[in-house]
Amino acid sequence: MKGTVLYGPRDIRFEERETPRITEATDAVIRIAATCVCGSDLWPYRGLQPSNGPTPMGHEYCGFVEEVGREVKNIQPGQFVVGSFATSDNTCPHCRYGYQSSCMQREFMNRAQAPILRVPLADGTLVPTHDRPSDELMPSLLTTSDVLGTGWFAADAANVKPGATVVVVGDGAVGLLAVLSAKQMGAERIIAMSRHESRQKLAREFGATDIVVERGDEGMARIKDLTKGVGADSVLECVGTQQSMMQAIRSARPGGFVSYVGVPHGVELDGRELFFSHVHLHGGPAPVRRYLPELIDLVLNEKINPGKVFDLTLPLEQVAEGYRAMDERRAIKTLLRP
Amino acid sequence: MKGTVLYGPRDIRFEERETPRITEATDAVIRIAATCVCGSDLWPYRGLQPSNGPTPMGHEYCGFVEEVGREVKNIQPGQFVVGSFATSDNTCPHCRYGYQSSCMQREFMNRAQAPILRVPLADGTLVPTHDRPSDELMPSLLTTSDVLGTGWFAADAANVKPGATVVVVGDGAVGLLAVLSAKQMGAERIIAMSRHESRQKLAREFGATDIVVERGDEGMARIKDLTKGVGADSVLECVGTQQSMMQAIRSARPGGFVSYVGVPHGVELDGRELFFSHVHLHGGPAPVRRYLPELIDLVLNEKINPGKVFDLTLPLEQVAEGYRAMDERRAIKTLLRP
Repeated sequence: MKGTVLYGPRDIRFEERETPRITEATDAVIRIAATCVCGSDLWPYRGLQPSNGPTPMGHEYCGFVEEVGREVKNIQPGQFVVGSFATSDNTCPHCRYGYQSSCMQREFMNRAQAPILRVPLADGTLVPTHDRPSDELMPSLLTTSDVLGTGWFAADAANVKPGATVVVVGDGAVGLLAVLSAKQMGAERIIAMSRHESRQKLAREFGATDIVVERGDEGMARIKDLTKGVGADSVLECVGTQQSMMQAIRSARPGGFVSYVGVPHGVELDGRELFFSHVHLHGGPAPVRRYLPELIDLVLNEKINPGKVFDLTLPLEQVAEGYRAMDERRAIKTLLRP
Repeated sequence: MKGTVLYGPRDIRFEERETPRITEATDAVIRIAATCVCGSDLWPYRGLQPSNGPTPMGHEYCGFVEEVGREVKNIQPGQFVVGSFATSDNTCPHCRYGYQSSCMQREFMNRAQAPILRVPLADGTLVPTHDRPSDELMPSLLTTSDVLGTGWFAADAANVKPGATVVVVGDGAVGLLAVLSAKQMGAERIIAMSRHESRQKLAREFGATDIVVERGDEGMARIKDLTKGVGADSVLECVGTQQSMMQAIRSARPGGFVSYVGVPHGVELDGRELFFSHVHLHGGPAPVRRYLPELIDLVLNEKINPGKVFDLTLPLEQVAEGYRAMDERRAIKTLLRP
């Protein structure tokens, strides 16, 4: 089979690779129905993250089970499954507390931008659907694997409650789905910080009530204005830079909640400023496995349509163009079909 | 009257000062029954904090109301009152959310190491008792003004729940009362990090089940060992240094809660480490006013005896010796009686 490998900055190749097979008794091998390019894939693509040579790419996936290892009990060949970008046994203490993305046996998935994928710890990582879902639901189901799960965690970790005033920092696919998640959790007011018209439009469709185009001090002044000088109850930081993190912390009211779900790049927090901000801070790699059953249900019952974040669909072999389009911000997110 | 002024590193003077009077219609003037030296007073005392010349000291207080301004409604002359180290109107949005120490009209108190004290925003800052409390309860009542309120916030902000495994970093008076607070909130296991025998003893008296004398990597290994490799549910950071903060973050389990209640001095948090630690982080100046009614009740009903942290009592005019004893760690905390 062919799979996706990053060789260096902006050098994505779709090349011949060994077809994955069961190697551990707890593995499953699945045939990918849909995969995609993640915002976090752009960090190494842009050369902004150290690399150890050629790297197989892709960690968002759904598809049909081809084969399972002999210790796998809950997953059967033929089933449609979605899995998290982080593997989990779903039984260790961290998993039982709902932090499956810190599972004691965690591995971060890769190699998913390919037609066939080996998934370790299949019983704890994959969630099967009852029936074979319709093809038009595939994009939305795929989002539950990471981008929606991460946006959902952003809203949950920032304690979004019915009636809340919410700010979302970042208008990438995670930020947009954080808007959708905040809306689902009953937020009354959702302020999306976005400077791009197409993304503003989608943010409004997902539930944003206000758009702030300003950043930095001006952005803060707008948020302060919109919240009558109080600050937001919940702020969802969906970027991972120093600027976005400070924007988030300074937009929350004392006692408010700030979540951060993108891997921080070069972020340093000053203890004293954080102290006097009086915010709650919580984040990390989203424990997607915790949310998968609920999110899959919401998609299958057509309560939400998160697949709208895919504004470009390409055949898998054109994966390099998928990266390029996102890098150049011609696309919010690229769906890849094998 | 005479009051306490810090002139420079280790230069505390008890000297003639103007007797405070009502200056705003919302003020009260109280006659101090007891005051004390705070761990945070030691930062400027040791020259570890910038100073703008001679500084009147003291922010922990309780006493009897002498006079109130004409807009004060809930406080009357003759009443015994305790107030927070931060003033609050108790009506602004931040106060209503329970963050009175970020009140829109907040002032940090000082000048309390004196026989007479002006308290701004008396209605929102002070809590009166129904009767005149007995003299032996004064030390414990005084603790509610800051040191107990701060320890209590440490436990609350770290989400201490019945059955929880708790680590307390720091064995100063706040750390010791954080142990007491965690015990009151139902913690099952309370691990106190302390290297001083007299403090270990008090920690055990207040509810500590385990003592860890190691610090740094060794300290972490001990915590890991004591929590079966999982980490603590709640970690209460009661120091404010880089070392204690990292000790706290690394002692919590993924999804666990870390609070920090001492003003951070030179603390910088690496975004990426914080992200992958998966902890909840919350802290800041303790909203003591939120807790005062409950804490005063616990003291008056003799459910708790937090006044035990005072292991040195001096007449107010010997305040300089009170600072010295704490600086040299001969005393945990010094009580001063005018």
